[in-house]
Amino acid sequence: MVGIIGGGQLARMTAEAASPLGVHLRLAATTGDESAPAVVVDTTRVPALDTPSLMGFAASCDVVTFDHELVDPGVLGDLEAAGVVLAPSASALAFSDKAHQRTHLAAAGLPVPRFVLASDTGAVEAFAASVGGFPVVCKPPRGGYDGRGVHVVDDAAAAGAVLEGVGGTVVVEELLAIDTELAVLVVTRPGGQRVTYPVVQTVQVDGICHQVTAPAPIDEALAGEAERVALAVASEVNAVGVLAVELFVVGGRVLVNEVAPRPHNSGHLTIEASVTSQFENHLRAVCDLPLGETRPVAPAAVMLNVLGPADGSDPATRVHRALAVPGAHVHLYGKAAAPGRKLGHVTATGPDPDHALATARAALAALVGTGA
Amino acid sequence: MVGIIGGGQLARMTAEAASPLGVHLRLAATTGDESAPAVVVDTTRVPALDTPSLMGFAASCDVVTFDHELVDPGVLGDLEAAGVVLAPSASALAFSDKAHQRTHLAAAGLPVPRFVLASDTGAVEAFAASVGGFPVVCKPPRGGYDGRGVHVVDDAAAAGAVLEGVGGTVVVEELLAIDTELAVLVVTRPGGQRVTYPVVQTVQVDGICHQVTAPAPIDEALAGEAERVALAVASEVNAVGVLAVELFVVGGRVLVNEVAPRPHNSGHLTIEASVTSQFENHLRAVCDLPLGETRPVAPAAVMLNVLGPADGSDPATRVHRALAVPGAHVHLYGKAAAPGRKLGHVTATGPDPDHALATARAALAALVGTGA
Repeated sequence: MVGIIGGGQLARMTAEAASPLGVHLRLAATTGDESAPAVVVDTTRVPALDTPSLMGFAASCDVVTFDHELVDPGVLGDLEAAGVVLAPSASALAFSDKAHQRTHLAAAGLPVPRFVLASDTGAVEAFAASVGGFPVVCKPPRGGYDGRGVHVVDDAAAAGAVLEGVGGTVVVEELLAIDTELAVLVVTRPGGQRVTYPVVQTVQVDGICHQVTAPAPIDEALAGEAERVALAVASEVNAVGVLAVELFVVGGRVLVNEVAPRPHNSGHLTIEASVTSQFENHLRAVCDLPLGETRPVAPAAVMLNVLGPADGSDPATRVHRALAVPGAHVHLYGKAAAPGRKLGHVTATGPDPDHALATARAALAALVGTGA
Repeated sequence: MVGIIGGGQLARMTAEAASPLGVHLRLAATTGDESAPAVVVDTTRVPALDTPSLMGFAASCDVVTFDHELVDPGVLGDLEAAGVVLAPSASALAFSDKAHQRTHLAAAGLPVPRFVLASDTGAVEAFAASVGGFPVVCKPPRGGYDGRGVHVVDDAAAAGAVLEGVGGTVVVEELLAIDTELAVLVVTRPGGQRVTYPVVQTVQVDGICHQVTAPAPIDEALAGEAERVALAVASEVNAVGVLAVELFVVGGRVLVNEVAPRPHNSGHLTIEASVTSQFENHLRAVCDLPLGETRPVAPAAVMLNVLGPADGSDPATRVHRALAVPGAHVHLYGKAAAPGRKLGHVTATGPDPDHALATARAALAALVGTGA
């Protein structure tokens, strides 16, 4: 009996992987428009992801994992104190806090952007001066994903506005000239068995993942460095299950951008492109079962996210067009359409990244209504 | 809204394919120990698969398909008369009756074993004399699957016992010296779009499918003949969705053994070994969506069924051993264990059939308790 807190598309795709394994999933989802409750029979609707709502649910599960990492640390502490087994643990989930993450990874000697924690504009100005001046990047420690909350500030006044909006400490970082972005998924079993997926390249637009390419078009040395750094991060975080390590490449070196202790958008293409998907391996790890092979089953693969078109139309109404694209794999999350909302993704494998990209692009264009 | 009548593992694996497509499934399952209700949220439990139980369910669906082909023809007629869209139609499902099947396929000039419909021992004896004497094969027209109801009779007395047990007409066939058995899946969309999967070899033990190998280890000419015959059968049956055509190879020629208008055990390996699985393509066809590519994604694949061991133990309790086999894909159906019961299957792909078979065998041995 595996519990999942949170009813989004990650929980939905985990459920798709649970059925063949015969793993019984129990889902705690809020009462809003969520993706996973439509496909998880044993769903509990809770008013909020707080201790009173989750304690009974969690106590009924052998182990509890997460659709997202935004559950309050106090709630996680309450659950562990009551004897609930969390996978990943509360201490691993603490790395979802960007201040905690940067501080601990830097202390461990891992390559991260130059940063400071600042709670007033003076501290931001001092940091800016130390890195050659504004602009710098300000991020709230929690609640930011898909680029939300990442602010490039040009002066002290702009920094002050961000500080006031956050109402507390922010992480301030140097603004980097990023060559490209990479991601590495690391999966860890409680006993320590650990596997990595091949390094992928990610392309973000406005902070939202748009495109993932496997293998990343980088040389072997850089791929090796990315994997070494990701494994070192995994050792620090000590997460059970999937840990996604997002990396910047700057001047030929990798820096840790973000870590997420859960299945990740950069790993959706593993459903079709790897022997074992990230969702199946996350479940295997959470259930303390042997991890599956992560090697690719095709020379190349590309994933594109399906975001709600600006006109508010629903890509699901055009699925027939996307399925007419040979070799395209369409994943829809069953969420209500809204402009910019992540509603699904498409994946294509191919003999090389260009072929896979062309297939995925044709399917995406069909779904969002810009196709032929 | 796609309705499925019957809650077995075929419905369960169809549900696994429905989620990524965003297709809403509605399931009608009996109250017994069934596989699919554990993973289909919108499940209606019915006391029996009869007209009173199914009419309201079917009327609520845009189209209704089937987990198995044993629904009574009278019920199917009632549903169609009420305006329910069945996919496959009642006329296609009529081919589940072996007497209907043999008679119509023979009349269409398709290669079938020599046969006769007999309702008394005299007719069986006359047929036996015409094919060189006993033994011959007697089958009840309906209700037989997994080898149930297939009787090799050595004399008139044995035939009489079968006739008495069936209580009506039986199909009597020549006993063939079968070189090997093949299967071809044909998928048809309402408008006529039709695709076939590569020919597979099947190995039956006591009439139950034990092993499926793709591609079938046969020469190109025989594979071509198998595909041509399967397509001709599909034209006769006119089924929407997957039609499985099982073939005997006798003296280098193919003969039609059985047809099943639904996803089929011989196609389970398409989940990992084809661009589009039989379950996804069945759903696409039933929803009148473009069919997906059926080409293999690996040089070879082998599927082995997981049958309940003789000691009554549950293979699910040994899943950790099977998942330790690199490259093995484990599918468990969530059914209560019983000796000989189909509880799951394992699939492995590989560079050739021998490698795939070795992987699949190791996983199967682990599950049934005979592994290291």
